[in-house]
Amino acid sequence: MGLKFLGLIDILGTVSFAISGVYAAMQKKLDAFGVLVIAFVTALGGGTLRDMMIGDLPVQWMRNADYAIIISLATGIGILFQKTIRNLQKTLLVFDSLGLGFFTVLGIQKGLSFQLDPVICIALGTITGCFGGVLRDIALTNIPLIFQKEIYATACILGGCVYMILIHFISDTHVVELMSILTIFLIRLLAVRFKLTLPAIYRS
Amino acid sequence: MGLKFLGLIDILGTVSFAISGVYAAMQKKLDAFGVLVIAFVTALGGGTLRDMMIGDLPVQWMRNADYAIIISLATGIGILFQKTIRNLQKTLLVFDSLGLGFFTVLGIQKGLSFQLDPVICIALGTITGCFGGVLRDIALTNIPLIFQKEIYATACILGGCVYMILIHFISDTHVVELMSILTIFLIRLLAVRFKLTLPAIYRS
Amino acid sequence: MGLKFLGLIDILGTVSFAISGVYAAMQKKLDAFGVLVIAFVTALGGGTLRDMMIGDLPVQWMRNADYAIIISLATGIGILFQKTIRNLQKTLLVFDSLGLGFFTVLGIQKGLSFQLDPVICIALGTITGCFGGVLRDIALTNIPLIFQKEIYATACILGGCVYMILIHFISDTHVVELMSILTIFLIRLLAVRFKLTLPAIYRS
Repeated sequence: MGLKFLGLIDILGTVSFAISGVYAAMQKKLDAFGVLVIAFVTALGGGTLRDMMIGDLPVQWMRNADYAIIISLATGIGILFQKTIRNLQKTLLVFDSLGLGFFTVLGIQKGLSFQLDPVICIALGTITGCFGGVLRDIALTNIPLIFQKEIYATACILGGCVYMILIHFISDTHVVELMSILTIFLIRLLAVRFKLTLPAIYRS
Repeated sequence: MGLKFLGLIDILGTVSFAISGVYAAMQKKLDAFGVLVIAFVTALGGGTLRDMMIGDLPVQWMRNADYAIIISLATGIGILFQKTIRNLQKTLLVFDSLGLGFFTVLGIQKGLSFQLDPVICIALGTITGCFGGVLRDIALTNIPLIFQKEIYATACILGGCVYMILIHFISDTHVVELMSILTIFLIRLLAVRFKLTLPAIYRS
Repeated sequence: MGLKFLGLIDILGTVSFAISGVYAAMQKKLDAFGVLVIAFVTALGGGTLRDMMIGDLPVQWMRNADYAIIISLATGIGILFQKTIRNLQKTLLVFDSLGLGFFTVLGIQKGLSFQLDPVICIALGTITGCFGGVLRDIALTNIPLIFQKEIYATACILGGCVYMILIHFISDTHVVELMSILTIFLIRLLAVRFKLTLPAIYRS
């Protein structure tokens, strides 16, 4: 059941990331193919960079057609039901935040299985969770959103720290995973709900 | 002869891609080195990303100096004969379209030799053919051209489907290759000639 | 002593590159996390791309936490002492130029140890030295600085040629390294001091 739940989060997270790419691309009036590419980049960019950097090749989404098919379907649905889905923003935010947590934990686990340093594992988890959105924004010539206003990567880093601490005290890895995902999920949701941002760092 | 023909397409395609980078870079008034880098990125970006994603390393163009020398020469000639080459736009379009077909088929074949799923092979071929231009546009802070107006990647995807279908019926791989290249070449040329674009996807 | 000197250059170069990222990011008013990411990208981007392209994986900075910690500290100091460090521009330029030479030579040596062609090794060295800055500029949606005004990559290419020539005449590799670093260092400093740029390549 734990495995099925994680598989469901993976699919929902991938779909939410893809849909967020679809909307960003449509705001820039890209054509259907451009929208599809941005959906792919958003959903798979983080994991692709992770796998290329640690050398787990071919990158994960290329090992079977599942991700490609899910993202293509999500893009088609996103285009066809533009208005309906726009009304589901809150539902999508929940999926997106769950996906963020899931992808981050996935990156951390890959780092651990490659015997990387805990600090590097947290960085790898953050890259997995966040760089799809960064690449989406760069490809659309926006300054990446997460560099500016939102507590997004910060949630991944904190969730990664939770993972690294709990793993010393809890023997059941699944529990550690779920608590780390939950941390990221809650920080992200609370940040959006209460419009939390990082403190200003500029001196006049 | 078939091999020599493909080798010639490779060189002409590389040169055309490099020259398209040279012009895009000169429009943004880059210096000579910037123009050279953009020529490299345009000509080699797609294949580099392909090789990094599937793990065929070092990436192909680094295995000998041939590509680096051809692109450097093409850049030098492009800079020296700016006006002459500007009048050869139609000839360059032919080379560029042939190169697009060739690079796409090269990506598909690499995918097959790595035993990837047919859907992934088509994606890999499209990445090989198109991402040089995408990276060129991103590096020059333009929204990638192929996301917006042109039937470009669509030609690669259709040519890839042709390849995957024909390979079940025709035993001579060279024939399949040439027919796939021809499909991409013709769709691309017809799209430019008749200003074909993808249908609008936006609702008012 | 030679080794310690090179280790010191590595640290100073990494710090200078990180600080240059901090400043570029603060000019675009990124939040603290955005500033940190740009510092990482600037300091590690070139080496990361190099390792991904030749297949030396996991990429170097992921093998231990040293680089991540140094860059995080440099970012914190850069943010805390914004004004003080702004007055140290000249000192930073010296470190930055030393770092440029060091990273370029590091890339050349990796290329040689992977038995790549000398031309490719010089390209690899230039990528190692320069692409961090290129990625920094792209992520901030600036056209990369080095494509436009400064003799930067040119210094790397010339330093690389010096390396490839001297290695045939001098048996002590350390001497060749130091002379190549010195070449890049001096060209870069002289270019900044005398505002040298590449000759114009545009015809009216």
